[in-house]
Amino acid sequence: MSDFIPTDRSRVKRLHERGKYDEASVYAILDAGFIAHVGYVIDGQPYVTPTAYWRRGRQLYWHGSSASRMLRAQAKEIPVCVTVSLLDGLVMARSGFHHSINYRAVMAFGRARLIEDAAEKEAELDYFIERVAPGRLATLRPVEKQELKGTTLIGMEIEEASAKARSGMPKDDAPDYSLDIWAGVVPIRQVVGALESDPQLKPGVGVPPHMRRFAEGASFDEVIAQNTAGLAKAAE
Amino acid sequence: MSDFIPTDRSRVKRLHERGKYDEASVYAILDAGFIAHVGYVIDGQPYVTPTAYWRRGRQLYWHGSSASRMLRAQAKEIPVCVTVSLLDGLVMARSGFHHSINYRAVMAFGRARLIEDAAEKEAELDYFIERVAPGRLATLRPVEKQELKGTTLIGMEIEEASAKARSGMPKDDAPDYSLDIWAGVVPIRQVVGALESDPQLKPGVGVPPHMRRFAEGASFDEVIAQNTAGLAKAAE
Repeated sequence: MSDFIPTDRSRVKRLHERGKYDEASVYAILDAGFIAHVGYVIDGQPYVTPTAYWRRGRQLYWHGSSASRMLRAQAKEIPVCVTVSLLDGLVMARSGFHHSINYRAVMAFGRARLIEDAAEKEAELDYFIERVAPGRLATLRPVEKQELKGTTLIGMEIEEASAKARSGMPKDDAPDYSLDIWAGVVPIRQVVGALESDPQLKPGVGVPPHMRRFAEGASFDEVIAQNTAGLAKAAE
Repeated sequence: MSDFIPTDRSRVKRLHERGKYDEASVYAILDAGFIAHVGYVIDGQPYVTPTAYWRRGRQLYWHGSSASRMLRAQAKEIPVCVTVSLLDGLVMARSGFHHSINYRAVMAFGRARLIEDAAEKEAELDYFIERVAPGRLATLRPVEKQELKGTTLIGMEIEEASAKARSGMPKDDAPDYSLDIWAGVVPIRQVVGALESDPQLKPGVGVPPHMRRFAEGASFDEVIAQNTAGLAKAAE
């Protein structure tokens, strides 16, 4: 795997020892995330829109209604910043100053572009379903032409990206370790709850095998990362 | 409580029935969130930085090192977009097209400004500690002048904001309800894990009462929302 070459745009300035630019570090976070916050500019005004996304090679994708203002603006090949962050814990130090956050985050830069080719569009949207729940696509009612038309797909080649992460215990000032103050970490994770079947389910339809990976209490980012790794392996 | 007056900037265009502009709807989400994604523009390039934040009245605050490029740029009263999103579930429909996401999100617009007054700065940073863990501040080693100097505090008055949310089951096409396809919701929530004490804790220091609200398995956004409501009540 190669590296992203950081410029002034993506180089991690603060606590730069936390910054990484290699594909493996960047992709590990992107492939565990599910919601990205996409930043873009219209008439000088910044907007940040949360949206589901997926990655294939150096490409990031997201989609939405063809009526979306965000997507219409992005289709004009404007520069965007796609940020994915995963909160892993609260770092409780002995002073307010050293309180911190455990996290994994990626900022990726590039230009958004409209993907118009119908076959490419359908293949990517299919991939997105499979990333969420591998095996589900084959069970669904097939996509209709009108639906494909009503969906805008945006792609972005990652030109630059940085990964930044923190883990572990607080780093307190040396003298503060002798104080009678509790310090430590509050782990935070996103977990799956018990599946809720649609009350309008056709009688006799049970939970299919492909939904079983969403086990109650499972770590959501681990499920997503496993799904993504499985698809990459299947494509080899 | 009054409303934010939406302009073209904040009006929810897509699925506009999901958009709300009243303070109660906007604040309920902001007060349950912990990480915001702040969008800003430098030389035409958008950046999106994840950061902890807090709200007091119509003001949003976030902070960081005085060496931070993001904060130095924002201190020049540039327009920013602060987005907070909470992922609540995956909506699994009978067609790919109707798959969706349950979420709560706010986009808030304003101009970032530097807060330089030392007393205001200290009061806000103290509030942030208390928002995370009410009662903790009094147990900590007091802040030092140098630490306050090394911290940049940014405030933003919310000029406009919109709240958008989705909850509940998939909305499938009428004929699809008769298909043999499982549909429903995968609930997703952010939960607290078992507290991890710093291995370098002074012997005899136990977990203090103010940390008990971080009960293993507790919903993180509910803990944060309760903390925030408690502080608002105490200030009345």
